Amino acid sequence: MAVALQIREAKEADCGDIMKMIRELAEFEKLSDQVKISEGVLKTDGFGENPFYHCLVAEFPPEHRDPLGQGIGSKIIKKVAEAALERGCSQLRFAVLDNNKSAIDFYKARGAKDLTVAEGWHFFHFDNEALREMVRM
Amino acid sequence: MAVALQIREAKEADCGDIMKMIRELAEFEKLSDQVKISEGVLKTDGFGENPFYHCLVAEFPPEHRDPLGQGIGSKIIKKVAEAALERGCSQLRFAVLDNNKSAIDFYKARGAKDLTVAEGWHFFHFDNEALREMVRM
Repeated sequence: MAVALQIREAKEADCGDIMKMIRELAEFEKLSDQVKISEGVLKTDGFGENPFYHCLVAEFPPEHRDPLGQGIGSKIIKKVAEAALERGCSQLRFAVLDNNKSAIDFYKARGAKDLTVAEGWHFFHFDNEALREMVRM
Repeated sequence: MAVALQIREAKEADCGDIMKMIRELAEFEKLSDQVKISEGVLKTDGFGENPFYHCLVAEFPPEHRDPLGQGIGSKIIKKVAEAALERGCSQLRFAVLDNNKSAIDFYKARGAKDLTVAEGWHFFHFDNEALREMVRM
């Protein structure tokens, strides 16, 4: 039976649940120590005057206990694609861990290209300490 | 002799010069066919009410004809680090082509880490056609 799944823009009151999902994803990626953000910062960054990020959430009726396997991923990424095209984006870029095979299969089945393999793009970062060191120099 | 180099926020009138540098970088990277943006879109995206990007430019006195080798890179990336810390960023992420050895050496000398090598992050994208296809599905 199809479930009434609604994809909508996140509200400030969703930040507690979003924070929980960020922690769950980091745990799955074995990168829990890299979670620096808090619910408070999520609220400030996403719901101020000039937001740093936008967020969509998938909402189920409260009686629905097990939302996995209902095509949430397909529906939410389609909404992201719509939002990108509406804003005139020429492409959508993102990063995936190479051991996350199910995510890679999911994205490739929808036409995504691995630019690290195809063109040699590497993902770099300066962590907070490196940024502070650069400013001190 | 030290040159009077000024790093400042870009203005809308800089977009012609910025567009020229985007084309020069793409040519250096042998990816000229991937430049989809125009001077008009640069203006709309960067200088509207809710800008998609911020940009710093390095400005030299007009009599200075050959600005290379004057430490522009170090000065501009230091300003980027300052801007990131002022805005409360916990890190700075970016992508580099693996054959751009001089850029990689430059970033690593300043404490950057290659997350593709260290943790297995791959850079993915959906191009415009893939986005349109997803919306049609």
